[in-house]
Amino acid sequence: MNSVSISLEGHAYEVLVGAGASASAGDLTAGRDRVAVLADQRVVALHGPLLKAAPTLEVLAGESLKTLEGLGRVLEFCATSGLSRGSVLAAYGGGTVGDLGGLAAALYKRGIAVLQVPTTLLAQVDASVGGKTAINLASGKNLAGSFHHPAAVLCDTRLLETLDDAELRSGLGEVIKTAIIGGEEALELVERRLDRLCQRDPAALAEVVEVCVRVKARIVAADPEERGSRRVLNLGHTFAHAIELAAGFGRVPHGVAVAVGLSLAARAAERSSGAPAALTARTLRALDRAGLPSSLADLREAYSLQGELSPQALLHGLRHDKKGVVGAPEFVLARREGDVIMGVHLDENLLTDLLG
Amino acid sequence: MNSVSISLEGHAYEVLVGAGASASAGDLTAGRDRVAVLADQRVVALHGPLLKAAPTLEVLAGESLKTLEGLGRVLEFCATSGLSRGSVLAAYGGGTVGDLGGLAAALYKRGIAVLQVPTTLLAQVDASVGGKTAINLASGKNLAGSFHHPAAVLCDTRLLETLDDAELRSGLGEVIKTAIIGGEEALELVERRLDRLCQRDPAALAEVVEVCVRVKARIVAADPEERGSRRVLNLGHTFAHAIELAAGFGRVPHGVAVAVGLSLAARAAERSSGAPAALTARTLRALDRAGLPSSLADLREAYSLQGELSPQALLHGLRHDKKGVVGAPEFVLARREGDVIMGVHLDENLLTDLLG
Repeated sequence: MNSVSISLEGHAYEVLVGAGASASAGDLTAGRDRVAVLADQRVVALHGPLLKAAPTLEVLAGESLKTLEGLGRVLEFCATSGLSRGSVLAAYGGGTVGDLGGLAAALYKRGIAVLQVPTTLLAQVDASVGGKTAINLASGKNLAGSFHHPAAVLCDTRLLETLDDAELRSGLGEVIKTAIIGGEEALELVERRLDRLCQRDPAALAEVVEVCVRVKARIVAADPEERGSRRVLNLGHTFAHAIELAAGFGRVPHGVAVAVGLSLAARAAERSSGAPAALTARTLRALDRAGLPSSLADLREAYSLQGELSPQALLHGLRHDKKGVVGAPEFVLARREGDVIMGVHLDENLLTDLLG
Repeated sequence: MNSVSISLEGHAYEVLVGAGASASAGDLTAGRDRVAVLADQRVVALHGPLLKAAPTLEVLAGESLKTLEGLGRVLEFCATSGLSRGSVLAAYGGGTVGDLGGLAAALYKRGIAVLQVPTTLLAQVDASVGGKTAINLASGKNLAGSFHHPAAVLCDTRLLETLDDAELRSGLGEVIKTAIIGGEEALELVERRLDRLCQRDPAALAEVVEVCVRVKARIVAADPEERGSRRVLNLGHTFAHAIELAAGFGRVPHGVAVAVGLSLAARAAERSSGAPAALTARTLRALDRAGLPSSLADLREAYSLQGELSPQALLHGLRHDKKGVVGAPEFVLARREGDVIMGVHLDENLLTDLLG
């Protein structure tokens, strides 16, 4: 028997953050033979044609976009637009558009460049950075995807000024999560800027998006394909996914589910892992100030989901979380600001108590 | 405006070649939490259950497998088999099964390990090494895929003993291509072993598969994502793809189309790039001895494709090759044994002459 070895290599890219960052799209794509645009139709309606003379596929953003059929549509669009391996697909929109555009770019001719232009706060601080792309399967959410790092990410904070309140709040859920993971300095900044963020203050948005991108970039660089340490970014997400699954996907915005997940993770960390009560209080206060629910009771009330979010339904959802083995959900918890532990199993009694 | 940088890394793997290599599958998958098998149903029929107790999805090999629907089927199979990111999908079959299994593994939970167990000569010497995976789109063949390097490749030359003549010959087309690219030593070895290869001599098969894998591994390691030098592996393929397109996909086996492509590339190299007549003669003689067509006339006759493979139809096919820009096909030609040039544009008169 004989054996032959094969070795491979890497990639680096930039995230531009600031008011007007999306204006760099022209320069960034100038060296490419062709450009095509995938865009949320609401973004086109608000901001007009996005890239001069580039063929544009407008889509209705949302989870229903993230199917094999939706993927096929974008792939055929790349082909009919005559894209080569030297071309670029620019994706303008929130997380679902970025996920779909990123995956299509990952696959078309085995990988072309994608320029991510996230237009929601949630996508700017979380979804667009780190190269995760995915579609949903019948068997579950985000089960098929790839790590396809973009050629560049343009976080244009001016695009956030037209966000509706619900989208802004949803994004603040991920902002608060990222700040807790980032540590004292990041969390203090977010706390100081929270009121101005809620008012869409451009300077505050630019400052906070940049801090969140820096926190995420540091974590992603250490573990680009989420084999271990990158999972700290799932703080609050085991609970959040169970909430989304139990409510029916699309009923509760992701960032809102994350907010409640953060409140539950804080209480769980306090009771299981010695986290101080002050961190729980700090987490809940930030969520309140951001206009986000900070308990399951708040969420059930705000979304009229008393039956759907029963403790039994949530326990079922937890047992089917895609991050953990079926039957033994794993949690990511913060013991202190910037000190996050992974792979935590919670006692049944504690869980039942938290979900009550 | 602020900018944040992100850096990434690599991967290495082994190709085991020899009689009985597939018996290592058990050891190689022992450390994984779960294993599932995607297999050509003919392989299961010939060799029985492939991996004890592993759930197995049997498929009918062929290009018709390589669709978004086929991909969805394998992805849902991974989910219902309970595969996690620590699991492995083992793909047993020829190039189409390896392509589909590799792509499903690339996408399932954003990438799980794939163990490639190629069961045809063509897949052992070419398709299974190098991480290329793909499905076809309505717009063209292999237009959606990824570079997903396997955890390991097991080239069990014993599996080749049950290959039918057509499959063996098709594989010999890629063997001869690889030998010309590899250089004098590889080509001489293939010439010396050709009669024994045609008789499925186990030692000759093991020796030649290993040489081909070494040639391919060297080229792939230098350019894993086919940005430049890896394209030398497309020797003869611009013509071959035009033949497959004009004939209707599936009518002419890939390796047979490559054989005729090699004969046309040899003649083109002689007339456009100063290749010696001796190399053309050597190429044609090897193809003849392998029982492969060494001219378009032979191919048209053998497959009754006079009309389909008219010069006009082939010219049209060349202008739509996915490797080059529409309207200006690019060729890979051998000037000498082991000296291959890329990006060659051929004069219209020469092309018309070659395709006559």
